[in-house]
Amino acid sequence: MRQEFVAQMDTLDQDLLRMSRYVRRAIERAIEAMDTCDVVVAEQTIDADDRIDELADHVDDQCLQLLALQAPVATDLRIVITSMRVSQTLERMGDLARHIAQIVRQSHPHKPAPEPIQQKIDQMAELVVQAARNVVDALTDRDIKLAGRIQDEDDKIDDLEIEINKLALDESIELTRPQLSNVLMLARFLERFGDHATSVARRLAFQIQGIAVAHAQDFSTTQE
Amino acid sequence: MRQEFVAQMDTLDQDLLRMSRYVRRAIERAIEAMDTCDVVVAEQTIDADDRIDELADHVDDQCLQLLALQAPVATDLRIVITSMRVSQTLERMGDLARHIAQIVRQSHPHKPAPEPIQQKIDQMAELVVQAARNVVDALTDRDIKLAGRIQDEDDKIDDLEIEINKLALDESIELTRPQLSNVLMLARFLERFGDHATSVARRLAFQIQGIAVAHAQDFSTTQE
Repeated sequence: MRQEFVAQMDTLDQDLLRMSRYVRRAIERAIEAMDTCDVVVAEQTIDADDRIDELADHVDDQCLQLLALQAPVATDLRIVITSMRVSQTLERMGDLARHIAQIVRQSHPHKPAPEPIQQKIDQMAELVVQAARNVVDALTDRDIKLAGRIQDEDDKIDDLEIEINKLALDESIELTRPQLSNVLMLARFLERFGDHATSVARRLAFQIQGIAVAHAQDFSTTQE
Repeated sequence: MRQEFVAQMDTLDQDLLRMSRYVRRAIERAIEAMDTCDVVVAEQTIDADDRIDELADHVDDQCLQLLALQAPVATDLRIVITSMRVSQTLERMGDLARHIAQIVRQSHPHKPAPEPIQQKIDQMAELVVQAARNVVDALTDRDIKLAGRIQDEDDKIDDLEIEINKLALDESIELTRPQLSNVLMLARFLERFGDHATSVARRLAFQIQGIAVAHAQDFSTTQE
C-alpha cells in the first residue's frame, strides 16, 4: 500500500513538472510568434493548449484518487492539495499563452502594437517568459530561493503594465483602435501570467516551508 | 467524531453560502454604482472585497483541517474538494466585482462608456448580476436545474462581449481612449464573472450528480 502510494505521488510530481514545461513552451512560443510575426507558430501555440488542459484534468483525477484511496495526512496531504492548486494555476497560464497567441494571429502580418509601445510589451514579455522558466526550475529543484525571486520579479512586470497602460492613453502616440485593444489586452494577459507564476511560487514556498516545519516537529518529538 | 464531522461540514456549507451572498452583493453594488455613477457605492464595493478574501481563506483552512483530521471519503470527500474549488472561484468573482467598481470610480462623474455601448454593457451587467443571484439560489437549494440554467445563460453573456468588442472597434462611434479602455475591460471582467458563475454551477451539478450516482450504488448494493 505504502509502496503504491509513493509510486503514485511520484507520478503526480512528474506530471506536474511536465505540465510546467508545457506551459513554459507555450509562453515561449507565443512570444516567439509575436517577435517574428509568425502566424504558424501562433497557431501551433493555440492548438497545443489542449494538451495542457488534458494534463490538468489528469492531474486532478490523480489527486482525487490519492485523497479517496490513500487518505494522505500531514506532509503528503499538503503535497496533494498543493498539486491540485498548482495544476489549476498552470492550466490558467496555458490559457493566457493561448490568448496572447490569438492576438498575434489576429494582428498578423503586423506586430500587435506600434513603437514605442511594442518595445515595452516585449520587455514585459521577456520577464514573463523568464518567470515561466523559473517556475519550471523552482518546481524541479524545489528551490525556495528561486520561488522567492519569482515573487520579487513580479513587481517589475506589474510596473511595466502600469507604464504600458499610460502609454496607451497618451494621445501623442498614434494608435488605431485594434492596436489599442491589443496593447491593453496583451498587458493584461502578461500581467495575469506573472501573477499566476507568483501564485505557483508562493504555494511551492509554503509547501517546502510547511514540510520543513513538519520535519522540525518530527525531530523535536523524537528528542523528547 | 462523526457528530463533530457533521457539524464541521455544516459550518463549511454555511460559510460557502455566506461567501456566495457576499459576492452577489459585491456585483449588485458594483453595477448599481455604474448605473447611478455613485462613487461612494463604488468605494464601498472595493473595500468590501477584503471580507470575501478573508472568508475564502477561512473556508480553505476548514477544508484542509477536514481533510487532515477527518480523512473524508466518497461523497464527503467530493463535497470538501468541491467546496475548496467553489471558494476559490467565488473569491475570483469578488475580485472582478472590485475591478468593475474601480473602473466606475475612475470614470466618475461620467459613465464608463458613451451610448450606444453603455447600453450593451448594462445589458451584459444585468445578466451577470442575475447569474450571481442564481449561483446563490442554486447553492442554497442544491438546485441542479438552476445550475443548468446558469450554464445556458452564459452563452448570452459571451455573445454580448463579442458584440461590445465589435462596437468598440466601430470608428463611427466616438470614443476617447479611456472610454475604449473602459469598454474593453468591463466587457472582459463581466465575461470572466459569467465564466466563473458557470464554473460554480458545473461543479455543483457534478457534485449533486455524483452524489446521486453514489446513492444509486448504495441502493443497488443494499438490494443485492
